[in-house]
Amino acid sequence: MMRARIPALLLLALGVLVGCANTNLRGTGDLGVVIERATGSVQILDTTHRTSLAKVDGLGDLSHASISYSRDARYAYVFGRDGGLTKVDLLTQRIDRRIIQGGNSIGGAISADGKLVAVANYEPGGVKVFDADTLSLVADIPAIGSDGKHSKVVGLVDAPGHRFVFSLYDAGEIWVADMRDPSQPVLRKLTGIGKEPYDGMITSDGRHYAAGLFGEDGVALLDLWDLDAGVRRALVEFGRHGEKLPVYKMPHLEGWATTGSQIVLPAVGKHEVIIADQNSWKEVARIPVAGQVVFAVARPGGREVWLNFAFPHNDTVQVVDLPSRRIVQTLTPGKGVLHLEFSPRGEQVWLSLRDENRIDIYDPDSFARIGTLPAESPSGIFFTVRAHRIGL
Amino acid sequence: MMRARIPALLLLALGVLVGCANTNLRGTGDLGVVIERATGSVQILDTTHRTSLAKVDGLGDLSHASISYSRDARYAYVFGRDGGLTKVDLLTQRIDRRIIQGGNSIGGAISADGKLVAVANYEPGGVKVFDADTLSLVADIPAIGSDGKHSKVVGLVDAPGHRFVFSLYDAGEIWVADMRDPSQPVLRKLTGIGKEPYDGMITSDGRHYAAGLFGEDGVALLDLWDLDAGVRRALVEFGRHGEKLPVYKMPHLEGWATTGSQIVLPAVGKHEVIIADQNSWKEVARIPVAGQVVFAVARPGGREVWLNFAFPHNDTVQVVDLPSRRIVQTLTPGKGVLHLEFSPRGEQVWLSLRDENRIDIYDPDSFARIGTLPAESPSGIFFTVRAHRIGL
Repeated sequence: MMRARIPALLLLALGVLVGCANTNLRGTGDLGVVIERATGSVQILDTTHRTSLAKVDGLGDLSHASISYSRDARYAYVFGRDGGLTKVDLLTQRIDRRIIQGGNSIGGAISADGKLVAVANYEPGGVKVFDADTLSLVADIPAIGSDGKHSKVVGLVDAPGHRFVFSLYDAGEIWVADMRDPSQPVLRKLTGIGKEPYDGMITSDGRHYAAGLFGEDGVALLDLWDLDAGVRRALVEFGRHGEKLPVYKMPHLEGWATTGSQIVLPAVGKHEVIIADQNSWKEVARIPVAGQVVFAVARPGGREVWLNFAFPHNDTVQVVDLPSRRIVQTLTPGKGVLHLEFSPRGEQVWLSLRDENRIDIYDPDSFARIGTLPAESPSGIFFTVRAHRIGL
Repeated sequence: MMRARIPALLLLALGVLVGCANTNLRGTGDLGVVIERATGSVQILDTTHRTSLAKVDGLGDLSHASISYSRDARYAYVFGRDGGLTKVDLLTQRIDRRIIQGGNSIGGAISADGKLVAVANYEPGGVKVFDADTLSLVADIPAIGSDGKHSKVVGLVDAPGHRFVFSLYDAGEIWVADMRDPSQPVLRKLTGIGKEPYDGMITSDGRHYAAGLFGEDGVALLDLWDLDAGVRRALVEFGRHGEKLPVYKMPHLEGWATTGSQIVLPAVGKHEVIIADQNSWKEVARIPVAGQVVFAVARPGGREVWLNFAFPHNDTVQVVDLPSRRIVQTLTPGKGVLHLEFSPRGEQVWLSLRDENRIDIYDPDSFARIGTLPAESPSGIFFTVRAHRIGL
């Protein structure tokens, strides 16, 4: 027996050493996820090496989806159109947990302490809040407006002070939920804020919540530092101005660039981008552009805002130089440019080209393409730096 | 032999499984490092669980030290007073590499693409640039001013467009180094920018580089979006105003809070904090405070700026509410409050208490202490979100 025992120990030790090679050990700060909207899958991306690390299947209907990240940047919470909430482990490259939490939802948020994940539902209208680790339900906030009916919930964001903020589309309200006791949200309801808020955003300084309106012009603006002042109307230059347009053609507010001093946003139904002053929330300029803008994305640390466009101009990207208000570059990367995402310090920008089945990576200084990756009908690209940004 | 072989395979598999438990597998987004200035050690911190994960020794003279992070947030580059450059692996919790690269240095920077680490040296005066992975020398930039002599280098930051920016103390110059070809930096030298720039910073939007002056009042301000405009004088209200003061008592510019619309900074030799407009770089207000301010740190997403003070008031912390310009809280956490660091979304603030040999963690909404950790003479606390921030 002795002769067998010593080699056995050696084998055990060898096994442990092999296992301890820790092939999954890596930082999470340079990772990202791209949604593959037609196949219910995502790819995990490495932005340092500009490669794809893995494809993860089984995420259901991702025809419209968004992502928030855990505060350690290890997990992506994917909010899918079918009401799916999927927690993806970027290190083990697999689904950690997945639930169907509602009938139809498109957006979510994570609390600053990382403990709560909230989802905004169209059906049933309301917000559900989950334990970010286990995805067990912690709170259910039905969005019953002062009209007594359920509203679709839109524009859900986290806000400083342990809060979630969101809008009720049908009732025309903005609610601020204090989550200090997560099982007992304390709700502050601002009613009559405007007709049909269809989306919302929070400025990067955490101060203002803005809800874009569909039923009238302008945005409903809430100063989160002074809730008692109530909601005021701002940016009245933004809106349909009476033009008949389906609500799904209204621009996402997440696509509005807030630089600290200026806001850059799409004009509705026009080939123009609006520049507004971020202190007064009034328009200061317009720039003619190649089409109907979908996303206006400010380059971190830079003077530029990059724009993509709706069909039929969705093969085009333009770059606006903010100080001079000129278009300094027009690119035609390919068909179906759905989304743009900058690396945290702004030295790379990644574009999803849905109809080309690829992602292209550009150098925003030289405008040269510096990389490309295959992807199936890619849509949203989300980098892990969002773990650290209020409202994302 | 057969009877021994099957158990051996089982043992091997068991070993692999045990090793694959991947005990080091974790995200890096919620990590941090605290300098233990008296013992040449650091501790690796977990801000989600508010614990210390490990202590790492052997970092030499850390009596004055700072840290930059790799873009994946896995490695901390510690720049020590003895000219040491130490690359610490936060996941394996050990020193990955360490070199002595100069005689006396206190600051460094990392490029946006994560490939280069630069160190600012007093001795020999200049900047050395290293491969961030191997720490092999890539470029050496002697800081020989237009006076023909070596200057101490201060205020080294990374800037958009593949650049490093730094100041020459003795010669009174600011240099912008284009690092597109890292082995051949292209230098743009701005001379006669002011007397004895003792430190520098870049605003969080990546636009302005400001060098605080010791030999005269005010700051030297460079618009990185328009180098041809040259350096101008700004914030003339800041400075010694003729008072005799050793240069080491001048406030670190890294301790100036830039909120996007306002800058909050220490007055020199007075118990006051200055508020300036970030567009005009002119003072707009002063607030009397408890002592000589060392760091003014803006809370992410919040309306507050937290202040610590020089001896003998270094047991005190004050909180300024920016909109009202009032002190809303005065805390006395303990002796030797050397540094303050907010979590990325601002829901926690960590204080190093050198003379109490501990770190305290506060809730900035309630001002309650929510945690404490033992540490030996702690000084700087640096969270991994800095991996994603220009200038840090």
